[in-house]
Amino acid sequence: MEILLSEINVPNDLRRLKVEQLEQLSGELRDFIIDKCSENPGHFGASLGTIELTVAIHYVFNTPYDKLIWDVGHQAYAHKILTGRKDAFDTNRKYNGLSGFPKISESEYDAFGVGHASTSISAGLGMAVAARLNNEDRKVIAVIGDGSFSGGMAFEGLNNAGWQNADMLVILNDNNIAIDPNVGALKKYFTNITLSGHYNRLKKSVWNRLGESRFRWALKRLGNTVKSAIFSEGNLFESLGFRYFGPVDGHDINTLVKTLSRLKTIKGAKLLHVVTKKGKGYKPAEENQTEWHAPGTFDKNTGKKLSAVVVDPSKPAKYQDVFGETIVELADQNPKILGITPAMATGCSLNIMMQHFPNRVFDVGIAEAHAVTFSAGLAVAGYMPFCNIYSSFMQRAFDSVIHDVALQKLNVALCLDRGGIVGEDGPTHHGVFDLAYLRLIPNMTVAAPMNEIELRNMMYTAQLPAAGPFSIRYPRGNGVTPNWRVPFEIIPVGKGRILKEGKDIAVLSIGHPGNFAAAAAVRAEKDGISVMHCDMRFVKPIDEEILHAVGKRFKHVITVEDGTVVGGMGSAVADFFALHGYECCVEMLGVPDKFIQQGTVQELQAKCGFDVEGIYRTVARLTKHD
Amino acid sequence: MEILLSEINVPNDLRRLKVEQLEQLSGELRDFIIDKCSENPGHFGASLGTIELTVAIHYVFNTPYDKLIWDVGHQAYAHKILTGRKDAFDTNRKYNGLSGFPKISESEYDAFGVGHASTSISAGLGMAVAARLNNEDRKVIAVIGDGSFSGGMAFEGLNNAGWQNADMLVILNDNNIAIDPNVGALKKYFTNITLSGHYNRLKKSVWNRLGESRFRWALKRLGNTVKSAIFSEGNLFESLGFRYFGPVDGHDINTLVKTLSRLKTIKGAKLLHVVTKKGKGYKPAEENQTEWHAPGTFDKNTGKKLSAVVVDPSKPAKYQDVFGETIVELADQNPKILGITPAMATGCSLNIMMQHFPNRVFDVGIAEAHAVTFSAGLAVAGYMPFCNIYSSFMQRAFDSVIHDVALQKLNVALCLDRGGIVGEDGPTHHGVFDLAYLRLIPNMTVAAPMNEIELRNMMYTAQLPAAGPFSIRYPRGNGVTPNWRVPFEIIPVGKGRILKEGKDIAVLSIGHPGNFAAAAAVRAEKDGISVMHCDMRFVKPIDEEILHAVGKRFKHVITVEDGTVVGGMGSAVADFFALHGYECCVEMLGVPDKFIQQGTVQELQAKCGFDVEGIYRTVARLTKHD
Repeated sequence: MEILLSEINVPNDLRRLKVEQLEQLSGELRDFIIDKCSENPGHFGASLGTIELTVAIHYVFNTPYDKLIWDVGHQAYAHKILTGRKDAFDTNRKYNGLSGFPKISESEYDAFGVGHASTSISAGLGMAVAARLNNEDRKVIAVIGDGSFSGGMAFEGLNNAGWQNADMLVILNDNNIAIDPNVGALKKYFTNITLSGHYNRLKKSVWNRLGESRFRWALKRLGNTVKSAIFSEGNLFESLGFRYFGPVDGHDINTLVKTLSRLKTIKGAKLLHVVTKKGKGYKPAEENQTEWHAPGTFDKNTGKKLSAVVVDPSKPAKYQDVFGETIVELADQNPKILGITPAMATGCSLNIMMQHFPNRVFDVGIAEAHAVTFSAGLAVAGYMPFCNIYSSFMQRAFDSVIHDVALQKLNVALCLDRGGIVGEDGPTHHGVFDLAYLRLIPNMTVAAPMNEIELRNMMYTAQLPAAGPFSIRYPRGNGVTPNWRVPFEIIPVGKGRILKEGKDIAVLSIGHPGNFAAAAAVRAEKDGISVMHCDMRFVKPIDEEILHAVGKRFKHVITVEDGTVVGGMGSAVADFFALHGYECCVEMLGVPDKFIQQGTVQELQAKCGFDVEGIYRTVARLTKHD
Repeated sequence: MEILLSEINVPNDLRRLKVEQLEQLSGELRDFIIDKCSENPGHFGASLGTIELTVAIHYVFNTPYDKLIWDVGHQAYAHKILTGRKDAFDTNRKYNGLSGFPKISESEYDAFGVGHASTSISAGLGMAVAARLNNEDRKVIAVIGDGSFSGGMAFEGLNNAGWQNADMLVILNDNNIAIDPNVGALKKYFTNITLSGHYNRLKKSVWNRLGESRFRWALKRLGNTVKSAIFSEGNLFESLGFRYFGPVDGHDINTLVKTLSRLKTIKGAKLLHVVTKKGKGYKPAEENQTEWHAPGTFDKNTGKKLSAVVVDPSKPAKYQDVFGETIVELADQNPKILGITPAMATGCSLNIMMQHFPNRVFDVGIAEAHAVTFSAGLAVAGYMPFCNIYSSFMQRAFDSVIHDVALQKLNVALCLDRGGIVGEDGPTHHGVFDLAYLRLIPNMTVAAPMNEIELRNMMYTAQLPAAGPFSIRYPRGNGVTPNWRVPFEIIPVGKGRILKEGKDIAVLSIGHPGNFAAAAAVRAEKDGISVMHCDMRFVKPIDEEILHAVGKRFKHVITVEDGTVVGGMGSAVADFFALHGYECCVEMLGVPDKFIQQGTVQELQAKCGFDVEGIYRTVARLTKHD
């Protein structure tokens, strides 16, 4: 019964409601999100936890004139629904549909496009400084989760905003979890604040005064010194030049509205600590927050997941699970192996190793640069770290890879999960640049497996003595080989595999799309086109023997990769041919030089033209010209 | 009179001295450094400030078994001199000489290679965790300046180390300055601690107890709660799980030895706040710390700088000054222009704009990712930020460039100073990857000027409406055109300039080395070789018209760039030729696929083979084969 929600299209509609009605509205929003997400999968838990906060912010602040920035943006579904996108919400995360994240081009209410963690304070500071330069009384609100707070950039932003005493409000949305339960000293610190007597004392001594409308007077009287003595544990933010307020119950809409209204009148850098519950209001999601972060479709009445994959050993496994199970096997043989993840233990399946070797896996929180340099420190001390980071997040550790790992030639295995097109998460999350940015780093081995067995053997090879900086990237989703639990074999570094001989055209592939190339070759063969197909395995060092052979024999070469054609494997092949003067046209299939929107992986691969059909068409076109 | 120092080659020699002798040793070390640096330029001020700290650490701790990590490493000269490199110190920063930074391959006492800021805690944590896993009683000490503390990775490291309660000592070397005076809330916070009554109270109530040898007992009695009430301003670190000690006078060697000896016996994550003075003991350096960060050669008696460049308007200026003066001109015309620098105001010459428009320049501290995303926030709000970051440091903002600037097509001008080989700072600082890593980002314009006028005009073009994400990289050092103050002209984006027609071979250059190519072409012409030379100006979008013309006409093409040949402009040219099937050999001159050591810029460019001689030789070789 969307009695209130049905009348609300934009925040101005919301602002016509009475405060007393907001709880009902929040309930309706919750039902709406549960209903929609049960049918069209999305980031469920985080958005349930921020409903009251979202309603309160839009109720109190003058969006879109006031600027609201959601960190990461997982939690912004209620925001989308309240800002003109209720009817379009069915298209959430679909091709040509609403983005799963705030996006400038989608709505004037989306002040900044997000997806990666910890950007909101820096971006918000830019807007706050602009407002100051313009002499505008424009409010800026950045909402950031406790998980995102562990990213160094959040700290950089705080440190700079506090120094400038920028007129902005940072809302710490403290739900004590990212995707996996949070780690880090900050988590403990936030919990301490919330649990400590300060919480109660605070409520009594300050928030009661709110009711008496003497809040500002009280604050003035308290003064900074006394305040920091009372709220001594809030001092972390005070140290950084922010005035700390809270914690407040993030599901108590009345208190939220009251608090935000007061804070709106206070100038300068402020932090409000709001305690919320991820999955709030939907019991299964409250009880198993990691699983319900992005649960897929489900029966909203029973909580039974409909799209849950039944593990069937006769079917190919996810690449991430092959990684997760293989590292356990390797760690069993090699006591120096450690696992490192920046807050993606479940996402990259290092949680499997955590069960077997709890002391040999390190979840360092959302902190990619630290994860890599920490791994470098472990390697210097003789350990063999496997540092697993999603490809698009590894962009954040680029300098650590260059400066701390590659320059020092350390034995660190960098495993890049979610390499290539990732699907519905869209352009912020596609891991399409990795082969290109890793290729330009000296001393770095850049490998990508075509299937599960290759992944296993690349991992095995990476942990051998003196393997040096070794990157292995593999995609989101499933492999192709059900029986992948085979004995380990060394893969000679820099050697590709010729999978099929042929005489009309050569297809050189890297990684999983080699399977598409293989299928396309079979199809072409039926048309009488003889295709040579080679799985290059390594972008760096690239197999020069194969390249010489191909360069000498073929007029046309097609390269296939699930990554940007600019600077990727195709480019490495072209460089080689140009250097050696082979008269060989190189047609590069992969991700073109633009940001790729969201959609299913299959849709997007087809659009890019490196699925089976795309490769086949290119083979046919190029051989017809002969 | 190096009475003590002459007997000391390694820390074990030092440990045989009496505590009372350490002050004299420190004085001798200071004289030694002043003497050597006056003749062989280096990072002077920072090292003078850490002499007593260095002596104390090596005296107390069992290096190299105990692991000592210097953040950045500017300050490690005394460390180098005390660890077997006294005699080699004359070769500091020279080709094949000692590195100006700690370097694993140089000495077992250099626990981790450094150069970029804020890595030491993460790396040290790796070593501390390794020691724990090995059950070794190995101490780990990370020395990090207050400037480096503003980098987010330092915070990521602290947050993780505190959470693990890792057995490590972080020493905050608080000299209140990086290269320019520090900014950021933290700076204020550190100063407050130092100035506040806590300092004195601390000395009285705790450090006095040290003398009585009841330190551990006292600490135990104090307990964490009481301690944090007493040292409430130390609470920032306590919040992050570190036990905070200090501040102590970093030039009082006796107190340092005493304090470190006590801390050595305390397990867990500890932070010692040490207050030092940059340039300590050399008056001119104390008085003008920015200028004496790396002063060049000087007369040690008078403090007169010998290598100081006399500004001669008839001589070419530094590129950085052309940037600095040009942005003032542009800002005068365009009120939306702002300048942003992460702690390099003097280094990139934004200090010139600070004088003219103090409210329109933002030094955000060492925080590159924040600098870029803050710029993105300003751009969203309608401003036109010029964000100036040294090329090798921009690697730290790679994801911000992709995720916050390019994806959102924002009008942000990224100016990369110190692009290419930088000389004596060596492999951590060469800015050789930028053209390659920027080229692979969609929506990004990648430009590099061949001279001062081109730089000016590129800057002018970058600030025009709808210019979008626009990067301009230029080298360390001087340009070539004394009279560069000419009226602005638009440079058509993606258009190169044919500087010289020719028929035997084509040379395509980008950026400053175009001047080398031009000279080589003149020289070749004298040998009867006709060289076409084109300054491409843009790596992206690349000038396809020129490439088609070149591809059709020439059998041999030489590309010239002051950057990695892997994925750089040469690669873009090769991609194009391979795609279009031109039978054109591409010889790529630039930085080969390895890390380049230190030396003069000229030495290193010659080694890489893209100086005048190298280009000429390549032209001669390739045309002889015809």
